[in-house]
Amino acid sequence: MEYIDQDPGNCSIGRSLEILAQPWVLLILREVSRGVGRFADIQYRLNVSRSVLADRLDQLVATDILAKVPYQEAGQRRRYEYTLSAKGNDLMPVLTALRQWGDKYLADPEGPSMINTHAGCGAPVGLAYVCDAGHRLADPDETERHPGPSARPLQRV
Amino acid sequence: MEYIDQDPGNCSIGRSLEILAQPWVLLILREVSRGVGRFADIQYRLNVSRSVLADRLDQLVATDILAKVPYQEAGQRRRYEYTLSAKGNDLMPVLTALRQWGDKYLADPEGPSMINTHAGCGAPVGLAYVCDAGHRLADPDETERHPGPSARPLQRV
Repeated sequence: MEYIDQDPGNCSIGRSLEILAQPWVLLILREVSRGVGRFADIQYRLNVSRSVLADRLDQLVATDILAKVPYQEAGQRRRYEYTLSAKGNDLMPVLTALRQWGDKYLADPEGPSMINTHAGCGAPVGLAYVCDAGHRLADPDETERHPGPSARPLQRV
Repeated sequence: MEYIDQDPGNCSIGRSLEILAQPWVLLILREVSRGVGRFADIQYRLNVSRSVLADRLDQLVATDILAKVPYQEAGQRRRYEYTLSAKGNDLMPVLTALRQWGDKYLADPEGPSMINTHAGCGAPVGLAYVCDAGHRLADPDETERHPGPSARPLQRV
């Protein structure tokens, strides 16, 4: 089946975007992934309304992307902060890919606002295409696409 | 400067999302990246209104993510199709990262609708974190974040 004849309705990109392309979601995940997990801190940094932020956080907990973890400081009532679940941590490549592209094309003239380095050796870190046999691809074009087990033909009435 | 004190206003993730988080944009780029470049084909496959699609395509050409390329079939008037520019091709890791996450968490029970393999050896292809010294990271947590040259403190009035 050629791609143009394949139904995009069960494409994993589309399904991911149903969750992630809603306003604020990826920015909230950026904050949490960088250790900003308290409601007031996220709200202050993103300048988003409390009600929208509360809605988004609830959705991200309901979809098991964020975990809501209790904490308590001396003399204070119990509060909650948000952390990435394993499912949320698996979104790191999405954030990194967005950052890399933005760093290349949209950064201020003096350079990016954030640099990630390998904790082991200090060299800058980025994403690369690799295959399960261990080859590193010079270009994403070195891949071939095949319909997967759930591929189905596109039929519109 | 700790991340929580750093202004997120010039973050490359945020800047990328200003373009990419608009409805349909990443789905359009998915289609074009897979060779579906003609207006009528994209419109049919995404089931998006002509006016919205035309707006998005114009924006993607204006931001140099897509190129509008003339073609002519015998006996027909000249038409245009869309292809990825170099800047658009650099977005492939964003699409791949979204696909990988969706394949893992959101695919139909029988599996993903698309599989990418290495043209050279046939093994499945995915994204990995690597550093400029050639190390492959087992986990994105093996990175350290540092404020970049355009980092600035967050100050809200």
